[in-house]
Amino acid sequence: MSASTPEARQTCIRDCDALVPGASGVLTLARHQDILIQGSRISEIRPTGAPLAPGVEVLEGQRMIAMPGLINTHAHVSMVIFRGLAEDVSIERWFNDFIWPLENNLTDADVYWGAMLGLIEMIEGGITTVADHYFSMDEVARAVEGAGTRAHLGWTAFSSRGYQELARTASFAERWKGGAEGRITTCMAPHAPYTCDDGLLRACVGHANRLGVGIHIHAAEDMNQTLASVNRRGLSPIQVLQDTGVLGVPTLIAHGGGLLPQDIELLVRHRAHVGIAHAPKTSLKLGMGLAPVRALRKAGVPVGLATDGAVSSNTLDLFEALRLLALSQKHDALDSEVMPLAEVLDIATRGSAAALGMGDRLGTLAPGYQADIVLVDTRGTHWQPLHDPMAGLVYSARASDVHTVMVDGRLLLRDRRLLTIDKERVLAEVASGMERLAQRVPGSRIQHYRP
Amino acid sequence: MSASTPEARQTCIRDCDALVPGASGVLTLARHQDILIQGSRISEIRPTGAPLAPGVEVLEGQRMIAMPGLINTHAHVSMVIFRGLAEDVSIERWFNDFIWPLENNLTDADVYWGAMLGLIEMIEGGITTVADHYFSMDEVARAVEGAGTRAHLGWTAFSSRGYQELARTASFAERWKGGAEGRITTCMAPHAPYTCDDGLLRACVGHANRLGVGIHIHAAEDMNQTLASVNRRGLSPIQVLQDTGVLGVPTLIAHGGGLLPQDIELLVRHRAHVGIAHAPKTSLKLGMGLAPVRALRKAGVPVGLATDGAVSSNTLDLFEALRLLALSQKHDALDSEVMPLAEVLDIATRGSAAALGMGDRLGTLAPGYQADIVLVDTRGTHWQPLHDPMAGLVYSARASDVHTVMVDGRLLLRDRRLLTIDKERVLAEVASGMERLAQRVPGSRIQHYRP
Repeated sequence: MSASTPEARQTCIRDCDALVPGASGVLTLARHQDILIQGSRISEIRPTGAPLAPGVEVLEGQRMIAMPGLINTHAHVSMVIFRGLAEDVSIERWFNDFIWPLENNLTDADVYWGAMLGLIEMIEGGITTVADHYFSMDEVARAVEGAGTRAHLGWTAFSSRGYQELARTASFAERWKGGAEGRITTCMAPHAPYTCDDGLLRACVGHANRLGVGIHIHAAEDMNQTLASVNRRGLSPIQVLQDTGVLGVPTLIAHGGGLLPQDIELLVRHRAHVGIAHAPKTSLKLGMGLAPVRALRKAGVPVGLATDGAVSSNTLDLFEALRLLALSQKHDALDSEVMPLAEVLDIATRGSAAALGMGDRLGTLAPGYQADIVLVDTRGTHWQPLHDPMAGLVYSARASDVHTVMVDGRLLLRDRRLLTIDKERVLAEVASGMERLAQRVPGSRIQHYRP
Repeated sequence: MSASTPEARQTCIRDCDALVPGASGVLTLARHQDILIQGSRISEIRPTGAPLAPGVEVLEGQRMIAMPGLINTHAHVSMVIFRGLAEDVSIERWFNDFIWPLENNLTDADVYWGAMLGLIEMIEGGITTVADHYFSMDEVARAVEGAGTRAHLGWTAFSSRGYQELARTASFAERWKGGAEGRITTCMAPHAPYTCDDGLLRACVGHANRLGVGIHIHAAEDMNQTLASVNRRGLSPIQVLQDTGVLGVPTLIAHGGGLLPQDIELLVRHRAHVGIAHAPKTSLKLGMGLAPVRALRKAGVPVGLATDGAVSSNTLDLFEALRLLALSQKHDALDSEVMPLAEVLDIATRGSAAALGMGDRLGTLAPGYQADIVLVDTRGTHWQPLHDPMAGLVYSARASDVHTVMVDGRLLLRDRRLLTIDKERVLAEVASGMERLAQRVPGSRIQHYRP
């Protein structure tokens, strides 16, 4: 095998400060480390200074923090094309008057170029993996394949679109499972208990078991949805997931702002393979209430961090999300001691990996883990003086501080320059569709919101 | 007068999108405008295209949003030198175990270099005016004078430091009033009702009246302080300000997380010259609760936006603050329709100017106003596609998108490069003091927190 094959590629990130689990398991910052990468995995992390073998490519890490590539546990990436089109409206109007009429206009090409734009924003902001829940997902898979990132992809299914759409969802999951050299995983993606009847949810479970994949679904997004479900049928959305078998397969649940205490008890039973994707910016902006992050963590239920789609959160920025996670939890508790730095970073790294069921290979800088690594530049004014780098990561870092991004040991961004995507082309393609995309056909929508 | 004097300097920001009051008074974005500046003031704003007089310096504004220079209505700028040294602690510990012991170590030089570092961060983030409340304020004034920004400065007074310190506060206010070619205004700066007895507050009012300046004070920072005051003496902190005459002079009140409905009624009577500085990041992070921003606005009490010091908020970033303002208000109301885009931007511009009593010359892009102008670059990935530039300003913009900053018609930042400060020198000076500054002497503090 020649030195130029991906498997033999050797890289050293030299003399960086690395966010790693300390002796107690709590995340800490190890100063002045070399991170050695062999092929697609981390082979060693050690204090800097030892000589390197010949042929090792060196990335200088001075004044950089190395952290696991960020994992966006819930998004609708292509919706960046609608960014800014649904501001200051209620959830009902957000769906019925904006999103679902807008999505009438979508073409496969829109989804592709939207995915590319969103992937650029995410790579530039240190996000290496995304769990994406949308339509025309072959387009998204192609975009991910080209961009070089990692993704967990599901084709959204609604009852209103019938079982034909569900078959498409399943065939997509089968077609792209293990795609892009293993960087793509797939799942069944029923939209939500309020848009999918029990039969459809059960059918999804059947497909998931048949294909050996999991489920990604919105549920208990806010307390209104939960109460509507309880009033209508005597069951919370999480109880519906339990009854239909969804909680019996690996399941990623988006939002959870409407989780009841008894829902958490139910989730505890399935915590080995069920996680919550918390998207604080969307939850705050749409007035949905926060997922009970601390109660879930205390109960051992994995919680990951998410941006949601840019048409609710405006950005695909997990540095912003992790800051909002910390600030909103302290605020709701009126207690500045909750959600300390190490826990915030734990949620954003190991928590997100666990929520996706990938905690054994993503979310941690340690030998054997995939070499999905981000270098964050701490030289900006807003970091100085750097008394506490972990405080810097949580409360000072901006997505624009991301300097270098690597997935499976391959560089996607270096010195803030994209290496795998023609950004100008993507921006031009997206700009060319703007006027058409902003059109809403009154009364025409893909679905109606009535939780 | 030659064309090179500041009074005769003519500049045109060409073909920008300008954030201006619309016909109804509500802020709107006027597309493709030329902003003409004569000397230190805006002379005209008009649709682009008309020919320019010879000798006019042109700043190209394509794909930029021009907005009023941001006004940081409450900060302790020099405290950037302590950034990251007091994380995840209660307010009591924050003061007693961290801030006040740390401040034991402060020298005049620390305050100067800290101010310079904070001014760099603020200029880079589009902040042209700051209301600063701290010690050794001659150092801060010198820093502001050199940086070319605008500032409203007050030397902090505590009862524990006695009337000698108060005399120093007053003499500073007198010495620097109208300094830096009018860019510096001054005020009396008693720390808070819980650290200043009534006699000291009354003495501050006396000095303020004698000098023709206002007062800048912390009050009702959270509900615990308010309840402690009510329990101890039967008066809320705002009632104390009323009783001691503070509300009778132009007064800027920081925080207000503990305002009672009857306090708002009291503030309404003085709303022509009293305003609230709301620092959402500090309020969230320290679990202080939010100022009742919507109730204050409804009552006509000016509310401005602030960062507070970086040792509570970690950054001096008003783009972050305006986003947190919007998100936290929607969250607390569980209503996504409150605090719409135009209102957020109004608070961050005209509201802040009004809170400082400078609404007639700052905070608005219009002829006759000071030419304190920021150009925000909308070309970043996180802005695309730009369906709604005002949504971009509130929910996508980062401080790092600030491209050009002007104060009194003079450029301080252009194409993100500082023009008035030697940044490398400042960073080196701050770095050299880091170890000493991080030392806390147990039991030694400048003051004790007991609200």
